[in-house]
Amino acid sequence: MKIYKKRLELLRKNMRENHLDVCVILNSDPHLNEYLSEHYQAVQWLCGFDGSAGTLVVTHDYAGLWTDGRYFEQALRQLPSDVVLEKQSAVRNYRQQLANFSKKGWKIGIDFSILPLAAYKELCNLLNPALLIDCDCIGNIWKERPKRVTHEIYAHELDVSRVQKLRDVRTKMQQMGAQWHYISSLDDIAWITNLRGSDILYNPVFFAFLLISKNEAQLFLHIKSLPKSLQKELYADGFCLFPYKHAQKELAKLKKKDVLVDRITTRTAHILQQNGNTLHEELAPSTLQKACKSEAVIARIQDAMIRDGIALCRFFTWLEQALLAKELDEYDIDTHLTAFRAEMEHYVGNSFATIAGFGANGALPHYQAKRGTCAKLVGDNLLLIDSGAQYLDGTTDITRVVPVGKPNDAQKRDYTLVLQAHIAIAQARFPEKIAMPLLDSIARAPLWHEGLDYAHGTGHGVGYFLNVHEGPQSLSLNAPISERTQVHAGMVTSIEPGIYREGQWGIRLENLVVAAPSAHAGFLEFVPLTLCPFEPQLIVCAMLTQSQKEWLDSYHTRVWELLSPHLSGAAREWLAKRTCPK
Amino acid sequence: MKIYKKRLELLRKNMRENHLDVCVILNSDPHLNEYLSEHYQAVQWLCGFDGSAGTLVVTHDYAGLWTDGRYFEQALRQLPSDVVLEKQSAVRNYRQQLANFSKKGWKIGIDFSILPLAAYKELCNLLNPALLIDCDCIGNIWKERPKRVTHEIYAHELDVSRVQKLRDVRTKMQQMGAQWHYISSLDDIAWITNLRGSDILYNPVFFAFLLISKNEAQLFLHIKSLPKSLQKELYADGFCLFPYKHAQKELAKLKKKDVLVDRITTRTAHILQQNGNTLHEELAPSTLQKACKSEAVIARIQDAMIRDGIALCRFFTWLEQALLAKELDEYDIDTHLTAFRAEMEHYVGNSFATIAGFGANGALPHYQAKRGTCAKLVGDNLLLIDSGAQYLDGTTDITRVVPVGKPNDAQKRDYTLVLQAHIAIAQARFPEKIAMPLLDSIARAPLWHEGLDYAHGTGHGVGYFLNVHEGPQSLSLNAPISERTQVHAGMVTSIEPGIYREGQWGIRLENLVVAAPSAHAGFLEFVPLTLCPFEPQLIVCAMLTQSQKEWLDSYHTRVWELLSPHLSGAAREWLAKRTCPK
Repeated sequence: MKIYKKRLELLRKNMRENHLDVCVILNSDPHLNEYLSEHYQAVQWLCGFDGSAGTLVVTHDYAGLWTDGRYFEQALRQLPSDVVLEKQSAVRNYRQQLANFSKKGWKIGIDFSILPLAAYKELCNLLNPALLIDCDCIGNIWKERPKRVTHEIYAHELDVSRVQKLRDVRTKMQQMGAQWHYISSLDDIAWITNLRGSDILYNPVFFAFLLISKNEAQLFLHIKSLPKSLQKELYADGFCLFPYKHAQKELAKLKKKDVLVDRITTRTAHILQQNGNTLHEELAPSTLQKACKSEAVIARIQDAMIRDGIALCRFFTWLEQALLAKELDEYDIDTHLTAFRAEMEHYVGNSFATIAGFGANGALPHYQAKRGTCAKLVGDNLLLIDSGAQYLDGTTDITRVVPVGKPNDAQKRDYTLVLQAHIAIAQARFPEKIAMPLLDSIARAPLWHEGLDYAHGTGHGVGYFLNVHEGPQSLSLNAPISERTQVHAGMVTSIEPGIYREGQWGIRLENLVVAAPSAHAGFLEFVPLTLCPFEPQLIVCAMLTQSQKEWLDSYHTRVWELLSPHLSGAAREWLAKRTCPK
Repeated sequence: MKIYKKRLELLRKNMRENHLDVCVILNSDPHLNEYLSEHYQAVQWLCGFDGSAGTLVVTHDYAGLWTDGRYFEQALRQLPSDVVLEKQSAVRNYRQQLANFSKKGWKIGIDFSILPLAAYKELCNLLNPALLIDCDCIGNIWKERPKRVTHEIYAHELDVSRVQKLRDVRTKMQQMGAQWHYISSLDDIAWITNLRGSDILYNPVFFAFLLISKNEAQLFLHIKSLPKSLQKELYADGFCLFPYKHAQKELAKLKKKDVLVDRITTRTAHILQQNGNTLHEELAPSTLQKACKSEAVIARIQDAMIRDGIALCRFFTWLEQALLAKELDEYDIDTHLTAFRAEMEHYVGNSFATIAGFGANGALPHYQAKRGTCAKLVGDNLLLIDSGAQYLDGTTDITRVVPVGKPNDAQKRDYTLVLQAHIAIAQARFPEKIAMPLLDSIARAPLWHEGLDYAHGTGHGVGYFLNVHEGPQSLSLNAPISERTQVHAGMVTSIEPGIYREGQWGIRLENLVVAAPSAHAGFLEFVPLTLCPFEPQLIVCAMLTQSQKEWLDSYHTRVWELLSPHLSGAAREWLAKRTCPK
């Protein structure tokens, strides 16, 4: 903890030298990636907190870390005593705090190059923009800062051609009246170019910027990471390649143009603004296009789900037997589950760090088991496993809970309640284009009725062999209500309600689903993609309504039909036992 | 229709003389009342549309009326052919249209004195404020404009003293750091002062402004409307009385002060801004305090509900018999229902215009039966009655649907579906302070599942012998998600889902409920206040779940217990038949 005290002192010294009263350190990079390469992990370097959502606000006599409900417990464990946990909510955030500081005339340093355009605009509305100073407060004081690492880039063929995608983006640009379109979000760039990389943990993307006009498509990236043959292909398809570092220089050349930039996913385009361009701050066309998967893509994802389901059945069969035969710990779960998945065709890697939480550890929604120090799977309790994989033809994300030893009645009741919440939203129909955050309460209602809730969203969008957390859609009551969060057919989303009993156990039941037209015109419904049974030992049938039982039976029938042809022996028996009608 | 063409021509001539490219006519007054006194009905005067929500945008070659889903049909009937219906939604409104006009550099005239502060601010963000011209575009051309009428003001005793309320408001002002507080919303002023009037249709309020500081409380009103004795009382309680017209003059005296003004309910405080005051734009303390009814007030409202329930039982008993004996029309419903209510103690008047829609007319959510031209209650169909009263001890609002003749299966199914939607939200528990719009989908889910929906909110706040539509809470998915729409214990709200079959019938089932602590800490639930049975002839019991049946039986038991002691003869029999368990 001493090291953080020293680093904060260094930061404050730097602030004094730069005449700053406040310094804001964002958990962010120029591309707003969810997973930060080490180069950008400044929040962790300064205060030890390593959750994915965190903003550190430092004044000369205060330091506060803003994070959301998922990370309150973790922050309390990780933060040094002189850094306050500031609880972010729908009505409370660091930008309001900065607005209060600004009332005192305080100067606020913040690194514009890693600030989303929307946050920048909001700050400019909340406080005097003259008090906002563009400043990398960390660069000078972080002596051993890790370099940004880049890896080989490869083609992803299983999709519409990049020529077609570029054409579609340009059509939208024209409709919006934009001459240029600047993209800094790596998932959009990977999707448009049909390229994949591994520069970011778990996300198959690569560091790049993309600048599109009617006739040009300037792709800024580490050209050496791209095989020669692929370079030629890209040129042939109308892309010009430039070094990554040239992006800002090229961007600065745009003057008095109509430029489309996504408010949320673009880093501050203040260069564009300063040069008298008109900014069209709309949802990037590619973000919506890539979220609305075609039937062909959904069919590929369903194939990947079958392989993921096979791996899961084999893993759970192994687990059941292994628990009887030897002592396992949480870390073993990740090792074996990953091994079963790695046997599958088209497997590339995991889509996020496996969460395997036994008993009380399951109550920490973002728990990470560490080798050696993690819990042993002994005694009677529940094991929560949240995991997913990247296959060339689909990204998966699933949470299941299994009993170790004998489950008690309270655990069964909790499991059934979470299942009811899951089914409530899985069964729902809803108007096309409704903002997804408005649907969240349908999932929560069964839990709220028993005085229970969970401090995370009910679901997130998922990419196609891309990011496992990928918008614009969000099934979370904390997400904004806007065009951006509207639901369209083809959107793949997770459904993952939970109950977390601090110090006891955690339950979360997660499937990926796709929004699809329902029997009623103008209304959509969710069709399950994930194929893995729920745990009959933990379901109290008497609590389920007739309609919930029907959903469960129909889901299990589907799981059996799609997976059983690929299974034999113990795994087939394991699945049969779990998919027979209630 | 010719008359509107002529008036629009007059307006455009006036616009040319004032060098305006656009003119915006708001359905609004300086107090943002829902019901406009005739003096402020400029939208209707210009284009004939008389719905409560409407904004007319006029350019030299275009005129468009913006309204919401409740009024689409009505607007299509009432608007002349040269005025376009512009459909307002969560993502589409007239302010965006003005932003587009402003891109052409067009000058936009709008009457600042009737524009809410929030709308003014939003416009300033969306477009260049220099293009917004404060202008009463109507005053010059509307020659026979009706005068603003004022009536006698009287005391409302059945509440906490005005001295205490003033003290509470000042405590909040101090906490917010505000030296002054300017209030222009009439319900807030009536509530703080414990005065009532009848200047606005159905709302027992009076024209006034209130300006509060630590030591002063300046009440601007038509002093002559106030009996001498009440004037003395007000002086004794710390209020100074000023003529209504002096408000702007006194407001202009405030310079460089901290002034609290409610963003939503205050009319443009640009005078305050121009004079260098710091505006604290927060929810007015009185708005929240008056929405959160005390137990004593809830007990009084429950008493009023008993009287309203008695009147309703007697009315429905009469109706059942009258339909057999003679020919009635929709207009008779209002006459007789009002007569039954008027017999009740503490009755003051109706809380809004009774909606009695038979058959296809029921499918128009805001239908108004006109004497002579309205439908006769003959043949088999449904009759929808939405009505309410002002009692000294409570404001009521209830919708019921009864069959005339023999109902068919489709009507029974629809009625049961609406009842299921009603029960879904009536049974819900939810976290304290959650934004109410997020709960709306709980009510809609059963209808959405069948491909049905309704183009209005599920519920609105209701005052205490005050406005029948009274915020800040709103149970509508179109309302903003903010501190303002958070639910607190003591809030009285309507629950009124519906199904509208165009050209056939309409069903809406509405109770008032109060948010109250549930069995689970941190969670609230809705307790019904309205006392009137649902219609057994229209309920398909087989469609109800066990839990829905239990809610219905428990509600009917409560209705029977509270109303039956006050009923005898046919009305008691009518009630008994409808409240026996399913």
